[in-house]
Order: sequence, then structure tokens, then C-alpha cells
Amino acid sequence: MRVINVAAAQMGPIQRADSREAVVARMIALLDEAKRKGADLIVYPELALTTFFPRWYMEDQREVDAWFETTMPNAAVQPLFDRARQHSIAMNFGYAELTPDGHHFNTAIMTDRDGNIVGKYRKVHLPGHVEYDTERSHQHLEKRYFEPGDLGFPVWRNLGGIIGMAICNDRRWPETYRVMGLQGVEMVVLGYNTPSVNAQKPAEGVTQRLFHNRLSVQAGAYQNSCWVVAVAKAGVEDGHALFGGSLIVNPDGEIVAEAVTEGDEVLVVPCDLDATRFGKETIFDFARHRRIEHYGLITSRTGAVPPE
Amino acid sequence: MRVINVAAAQMGPIQRADSREAVVARMIALLDEAKRKGADLIVYPELALTTFFPRWYMEDQREVDAWFETTMPNAAVQPLFDRARQHSIAMNFGYAELTPDGHHFNTAIMTDRDGNIVGKYRKVHLPGHVEYDTERSHQHLEKRYFEPGDLGFPVWRNLGGIIGMAICNDRRWPETYRVMGLQGVEMVVLGYNTPSVNAQKPAEGVTQRLFHNRLSVQAGAYQNSCWVVAVAKAGVEDGHALFGGSLIVNPDGEIVAEAVTEGDEVLVVPCDLDATRFGKETIFDFARHRRIEHYGLITSRTGAVPPE
Repeated sequence: MRVINVAAAQMGPIQRADSREAVVARMIALLDEAKRKGADLIVYPELALTTFFPRWYMEDQREVDAWFETTMPNAAVQPLFDRARQHSIAMNFGYAELTPDGHHFNTAIMTDRDGNIVGKYRKVHLPGHVEYDTERSHQHLEKRYFEPGDLGFPVWRNLGGIIGMAICNDRRWPETYRVMGLQGVEMVVLGYNTPSVNAQKPAEGVTQRLFHNRLSVQAGAYQNSCWVVAVAKAGVEDGHALFGGSLIVNPDGEIVAEAVTEGDEVLVVPCDLDATRFGKETIFDFARHRRIEHYGLITSRTGAVPPE
Repeated sequence: MRVINVAAAQMGPIQRADSREAVVARMIALLDEAKRKGADLIVYPELALTTFFPRWYMEDQREVDAWFETTMPNAAVQPLFDRARQHSIAMNFGYAELTPDGHHFNTAIMTDRDGNIVGKYRKVHLPGHVEYDTERSHQHLEKRYFEPGDLGFPVWRNLGGIIGMAICNDRRWPETYRVMGLQGVEMVVLGYNTPSVNAQKPAEGVTQRLFHNRLSVQAGAYQNSCWVVAVAKAGVEDGHALFGGSLIVNPDGEIVAEAVTEGDEVLVVPCDLDATRFGKETIFDFARHRRIEHYGLITSRTGAVPPE
């Protein structure tokens, strides 16, 4: 048994007017609750420090950049790092990253128990669009404000296991999990902000959208025999609803915990990393079963090309 | 609307002593029922003409070869082809193929409405093992009797759509669907023979095994926005139980029909290929969203390699 007690720290809405300091105070309260529940690792959502600003169309780059962090930790976030080190809890959370040389990424970091940043991931699969789209019920401008991640899908040894990160829309892409699976990943942590309404198909409904969330996460866990911890920012931000449904899935693809609210809520589950071994050594023993000579299109072709 | 009425023709057990002719008579009865229900395409299981012989350990190659077909159609199967042409129903079924130059494959073919074979697929992901394994509750010797498929994952234009094939264990591998998705596949048809007991983990239970079946098929359908028709050979063959659970899944990953027996059973569902378009043009518009520069390990590395 190699158990990591994981806290999925779902966060309720963050309004546009909320300060970083107010958000960090909420994150610290979740961290304290996670500590009381025995957590070793806490997983917060994507863009945990701010509202989901890509829903707002902005043309002034200074207005855009105000949503980004230029250093991490910075003064507003330092109290969270201090408390995490005090509690000896490792963390994963997302934020908008502006690099010294002017690049914008949708980023997540992972710390060790001492509050040191040991891993950084930049979101690869950016959903949405670049220009204002009059045909959508709301905007989703991630492709406007962020560049695609440039770090690939690394994994890190932390807390005695092999842990990888992903962000939001990445979870719908089997490539995300597989690239980490090929590095022996035992746990994938990811945060998301997902609108309750499909801007291009309002009839879809939140039930189906929660189903797609579960399906993607469960398949990624099963097909790579790893734990997946998927954590929402949820609730209504300035009139725009995000669904909750944070969940922890075991290496059999089974949901072992799922949030029931759309607010701040902590789920803690003991995740035995040795439970990943059976799948990795039998049906998903990649070395014995994968046939890469037939997978060429996956890396040689980006878009679909129908046959003649 | 581009509707294909698809018949998932689940088959109950085939005993070792059953002749090809007896099996073909059952397949014709299912075809007749599919015709009455308006089918355009009928999908039968993997290794539809025989018992699931890879459960039997054999050393005499002549005994092995007796389970294989050296031509298709052949005299035993010709009546099925004749009836399908008469009904103007396209077919997909699996069989063990022995080529003129002595290669053994776990194969499936697809015909058009005129009974012409328009596509052949050879199973890529062979499960199981090569030598007798005393630690298993039963044998699963596909790696002994078959070579991995050498045809990749092609798709074909048939019945006004783009259709691909897979077989059994292929359905658990996201690469299977993705390679076809990159060719614009609108419907994947696949047959399976899956033991109700995990030979290496009897405690798993059939409920969990059916869950993994559904999860794999539903994720493949959703993540490539295509229909998937997955058809079992089910029931007890000479004391060995195979699960049923044949299912038809829409491009949203939702189950629209599922078998309720472990015997011969036909499900017919009208599948609108235009229902694949929304997903392919939005969230799974591969050309806009995939980032192949980060997928390299999928085709460059077969087995998992943990980090230092």
C-alpha cells in the first residue's frame, strides 16, 4: 500500500470583483479542512485565483494582463504556500501565467510537502475561439488569451508516487492521459471551469455535460490504470453558471467520490497507488499489447481527413 | 439525415461440437429478423463462425487450423452471403483467417448491400498469452494462435457513410478509435467474445466487466463523435461463460440500445450519421484543437517508462 490521501477542493464561484486575497483566504479555509481530514495532497481548480475571465471579451491587453500572475508564489498567494508548508500538504492549483518574456499560458503548478514548486504544466488543449462570436450564447475566449502549452505532459515523482497534471479540456482528450500513462503515471490531477451551458448547443443540458465530464475522466483512469482527481470551480460567476461534479476516480475507472454542491467543498479519499499495478501489469501492460506501427496518424495528422 | 438502420446481432454460445453450417443457419435467422426490422447493416460478433477456441490449449497445428477459414466466403458461409444479398443488407462479422501463405489472423470483413466484401480488418490488439499459464483460471491464447493485424485501422465508404472496424480488445484502446477518427469515421462496428470472469482476478465480477465494456465503447464514441456498434458472442460455451451486453452508442457517448439476454438477440437502431457532425465541428474539431507536437510518445514508445 502506497496511500496518498487526496483532497479534491472544489471551489464555488469567484466573482469578477473578488480580490486575489479574498480567494486565497477561501483556499486556506479549504486547506485547513483538508488537513483536518488527513490530506497529503490538495487539488484546486483551474484558474483558481480568479473568475473564469475568458468568458469576457477584452481588447485592452492591460485589462487582460490584470488577470495574470507574473510570479508564483506572489504576495497575494504567499499565505497559501505558508499554510501548506505548515500543514505539510502538497498542492496543485491553476492560474493564468504571464512570463517575463510576455507569453500567456493557462498554467498549473504542483508543490511538494515543503511548499516548493516541483512541477509546472501549461494547458495544451485550449477550447473556444479567438474573436468575438455572435452566434454563441456566451464567449469562451481561451484561444484569444492563452497560447497552447509548450511543456508537453510531463510527470513528476512526488509523495512517493508518479503524478501528472492536466487542465480542464485536456481531460476530454485520450492523448493527454496516454502520454502520461507511457511515463507510468499513477495519479493525474486536474482542475476545470466548465460552463453549465454549451454555448453552441443550449439544448444539451447540464446532465449530459456532467456525463461527458465523468466519461472522459473515467476512461482516462481505466485505460491507463491510474487515479484521476478532477476538481471544478462551480456555481454562478456574475450570472454565468459553471457545473460542479468534482470527482475522484480509481484505476478501474470507478467514481469513488463526487461533489454534491456547486460551492466550496472538500472530498478526501485515500488513494492507494499500488492499486494501479494490476491494470498496468495485465490488460494495460502497454509493452505487451500496444502496436505503435499502426498508430502513426495520431502524431502525423492533426485534423481528420476523410477517405476519397 | 443520413440514416443507417443498424442491427446488432448478438449471438448466444457456440459449442465446440457445433458445425459451421449450424452456426450459419443461426446467423441467417438473425439476418431474417434484422430484415423484418428494416436493417441496412447487420453486425455479428468476433469469431462468429466457431466457439471461442483460444480458450483451448492446443499443440497440434492441424487441430488449430481446423478453426480457421482459408477462403471467404466458403461453402459453409455462402448461404449467409446469398441471403444478405437477397435482403440487400450489408454485413460485418469476424472469423479466424488462415492466409494462403500460412498467416493466422483474427479477422473481420464488411460487405456492401450486394454481398461483396468491401473491407477487411485484422485484430491489432491481441490479448492473452502464448504459453499455457497455470496461474489463470482459464486460458486466453490469442497471442498463441494469431499474429497481430497487419492492416492498421482503415475506414471505408459504405452505405453512404464512413465505417471502420475493430475487434474485441481493440475497443479498450483509445488509439483504435482515434486512428479511425482521424479518417473521419462515422461508425465503428466491432464484435467481441469476452469471458465473464477475469482469469487473473476472479473477484472482479461480471458487473465491473460490463462496466469496462460500456466505458471503453462510450468514450471511443464520444471522443471521436461517431456511432459505435459493439456486439457480443455471449453465454456459456462448453462450461465457459462469456458476457453479453451488446450495445449501440451514439456520437454523444450515450447508450441507445443494449442487449438484455446472453443468447441470440437482435437490436435495431436508426443511426443518423449526420449526428456525428456537431461534435466533429466543435469540441472534437481535431484540426483546431489537437496538438500533435506533444503526442510524440504515443507513437515513439510502446511500453511505459517511469521517470528517473
